[in-house]
Amino acid sequence: MKHLLSIADLTAEEITGLLDEADRFADSLRDREVKKLPTLRGRTVFTLFYENSTRTRSSFETAGKWMSADVINISASSSSVKKGESLKDTALTLRAVGADAIIMRHPSSGAARQVANWVGQGSDGISVLNAGDGAHEHPTQALLDAVSLRNRLGRIEGAEVVIVGDLLHSRVARSNALLLTALGANVTFVAPATLQAPGMEHWLNPNVGSGRGTVTVTEDMDAALAKADAVMMLRVQAERMNGGFFPSHREYAARYGLSEARAAGLADHAIIMHPGPMLRGMEISDSVADAPNTVVLNQVTAGVHVRMAALFTLLVGAEGSVAE
Amino acid sequence: MKHLLSIADLTAEEITGLLDEADRFADSLRDREVKKLPTLRGRTVFTLFYENSTRTRSSFETAGKWMSADVINISASSSSVKKGESLKDTALTLRAVGADAIIMRHPSSGAARQVANWVGQGSDGISVLNAGDGAHEHPTQALLDAVSLRNRLGRIEGAEVVIVGDLLHSRVARSNALLLTALGANVTFVAPATLQAPGMEHWLNPNVGSGRGTVTVTEDMDAALAKADAVMMLRVQAERMNGGFFPSHREYAARYGLSEARAAGLADHAIIMHPGPMLRGMEISDSVADAPNTVVLNQVTAGVHVRMAALFTLLVGAEGSVAE
Amino acid sequence: MKHLLSIADLTAEEITGLLDEADRFADSLRDREVKKLPTLRGRTVFTLFYENSTRTRSSFETAGKWMSADVINISASSSSVKKGESLKDTALTLRAVGADAIIMRHPSSGAARQVANWVGQGSDGISVLNAGDGAHEHPTQALLDAVSLRNRLGRIEGAEVVIVGDLLHSRVARSNALLLTALGANVTFVAPATLQAPGMEHWLNPNVGSGRGTVTVTEDMDAALAKADAVMMLRVQAERMNGGFFPSHREYAARYGLSEARAAGLADHAIIMHPGPMLRGMEISDSVADAPNTVVLNQVTAGVHVRMAALFTLLVGAEGSVAE
Repeated sequence: MKHLLSIADLTAEEITGLLDEADRFADSLRDREVKKLPTLRGRTVFTLFYENSTRTRSSFETAGKWMSADVINISASSSSVKKGESLKDTALTLRAVGADAIIMRHPSSGAARQVANWVGQGSDGISVLNAGDGAHEHPTQALLDAVSLRNRLGRIEGAEVVIVGDLLHSRVARSNALLLTALGANVTFVAPATLQAPGMEHWLNPNVGSGRGTVTVTEDMDAALAKADAVMMLRVQAERMNGGFFPSHREYAARYGLSEARAAGLADHAIIMHPGPMLRGMEISDSVADAPNTVVLNQVTAGVHVRMAALFTLLVGAEGSVAE
Repeated sequence: MKHLLSIADLTAEEITGLLDEADRFADSLRDREVKKLPTLRGRTVFTLFYENSTRTRSSFETAGKWMSADVINISASSSSVKKGESLKDTALTLRAVGADAIIMRHPSSGAARQVANWVGQGSDGISVLNAGDGAHEHPTQALLDAVSLRNRLGRIEGAEVVIVGDLLHSRVARSNALLLTALGANVTFVAPATLQAPGMEHWLNPNVGSGRGTVTVTEDMDAALAKADAVMMLRVQAERMNGGFFPSHREYAARYGLSEARAAGLADHAIIMHPGPMLRGMEISDSVADAPNTVVLNQVTAGVHVRMAALFTLLVGAEGSVAE
Repeated sequence: MKHLLSIADLTAEEITGLLDEADRFADSLRDREVKKLPTLRGRTVFTLFYENSTRTRSSFETAGKWMSADVINISASSSSVKKGESLKDTALTLRAVGADAIIMRHPSSGAARQVANWVGQGSDGISVLNAGDGAHEHPTQALLDAVSLRNRLGRIEGAEVVIVGDLLHSRVARSNALLLTALGANVTFVAPATLQAPGMEHWLNPNVGSGRGTVTVTEDMDAALAKADAVMMLRVQAERMNGGFFPSHREYAARYGLSEARAAGLADHAIIMHPGPMLRGMEISDSVADAPNTVVLNQVTAGVHVRMAALFTLLVGAEGSVAE
């Protein structure tokens, strides 16, 4: 594996391999007194973020540093982008500086793959990790969600996962559908028609044949929740709500928010997920956000392990796990 | 000691312990050829700053790195705060990422204690260090001031310390009064009535009984300076001066600035302090800022040692000093 | 060598020494499996940038980290500058925090030398590296250009180097002329009269006697290119073009851009350089930017080695190369 650009690129085996590696890193760190591995000593990792982010950037930075990589942060607001440099030249410059990997967030769908085409070719090609590209994909988010699901439910295959909210603009939803169906889980998307994405019923992993899970789309949240093993609430991108999707925030919260009443109706074993940042009182009620079956913070912790696994797999390869 | 939120939480013994630890770190670094300690290797420290700062953030970052911690910086301008995430969720997220400590600056008084309540509980509780919360406290500033005072005057008990300037908004003044009175120094606050804080004569450390120093408030700077062992000038927060406290900057400088003439009238052994950043020509004249008895830069240096001591005490504990 | 402020301060021997050291670091890194040297372990390096930069800041940060220094970044936008602190106090503060070196970019010519005067004196004086000061100098850029030239042409002495573009505001052009003439290369500046700097024909290194190269100024690009061993295109600072230098961007590109046709007319061995960021289609055509004899990315790579050499030379000295 050279890059991590899209869940759609991965086979079920590759996905499972990353999840297993993440678990091994979690175990390895848990057992150590000094929580620092020499794995990536002498490797240089750049974060190149064209959109703000607390959790994703700091999660990748933590992952890199815990493996002893040098991590250098670049945000677009302080970069040569302002002087008119192209994305291509910025990326080639970082490779020439000495980057072994570029972790990239960008508002345009496909930007990470473009960069991978520019810097990932040939004998001096380096790795690119997509940390979110427009409304396209956010593969490490889907991987950390899968780690959390697997650890809490004991399995992914056959699980019923309900994903609720602004699906139209959600890279998280797409990456999750591609991953979950590859591992045999069934995804139900819940959103009003105005927030559904065209063709989302086809967000099925192309690298999986039989045994693939299904994708269903509905506006009926309560019917979907009745059979859910997990429900994943997406952030309401409030700035887009002003465009007239709903008469009010209150109506959105009522129809598509995860209220205490709705949470109470879930199966006992069902878990509640959210990629963060949460808007309490909007898509998720305050008490539900803090409920025992809400695994939001487990997701965050899994994120560091998944990003360690991804960096390790891309930069060191699969010859053997350092965590062993 | 789990957190460092307020000087008011500390006993005189705890304060002295931190000052002693800071001196030990100073000695330890002075003796080493390679100025780097393994003390916090494998620990992860986040700075979370909702206000800009050069000296405090870089001082903490230096302290952490000199003890081999991984230090990750988050500033509010690039964080999920913009997406509407609550302070609580931001803090819980950082703990879930893997923070062992959060160093926090925030414009609201009490914010650090709030965060400590959220992330500091239970077996997985982490440490919070208050790097300035509104007009409330700035405990590491008071500790570094005390290190500087003790090193230059030879003692704190019985010392007469005059603090001049915008006391109304000053977390530095409050933390200093709480610390100095705990160790038996007497504090005289000097400010025009409009810049005095209500109740500041009661800024006395609650954890100290007999032997506690006193707090006096006056508008008469020259009378106060006559008996001073140390004078601490506070930054004039010029943006607030437009509100009509004075007819002009010139009048403020004349009545409450530390001029060459006033500095010449100080006792020979008296020292001049400022938490920085200084506005030369406003609260302190240019030549006084650079005078031999001005210890502003000693304060800055002491700041790194105090922050090493604080991080060490919170994260490793008092079983033994690494500096020994 | 205490500081690196200006190429005008350096003798030909000192320049050659830095270039040789950069080559040694390049060799040393190439041979190592773990690309990390212990050279600057325990040293603390601050970057203090009052202007945005991707490549220069991240290049210095990489150089420091690859030598195991602690690197702490300060950008003016988040600094005490906003509170009115003087540059002098900011610099003295960083020294007091524990900086061994300050790497500084500032919009004012001479700012780095000022800072060196403030923090570089006496037994506790620290080093200052100029990473660009207004329209004055950018010494590490000229050094990395010289490394690239020497590696590709095999020599600098006698080389004909043509520098084209906005010379009026270019610190890169001045530093290059001072360096190249010191080593016996001849510089031809090409620009319209409105973008020529007064007195630029005298940008000759003052520390070199006989054997010094020459500086020539012309508006005739094609005549200059005919004899060029290397052509260095400068970025068009488009915001200044609105001031009426040209009727249009198109006319600038036509008269002073390095088009495919012009590049085809260069000698076979001639190389094409650009300090970046490039404006493709403006001062350099898209295909020329990617041509085999364009060494822009080699320049970027050399930049890290040059900055390692500079930090090493200033902080460790010339007693022996760690790279050996």
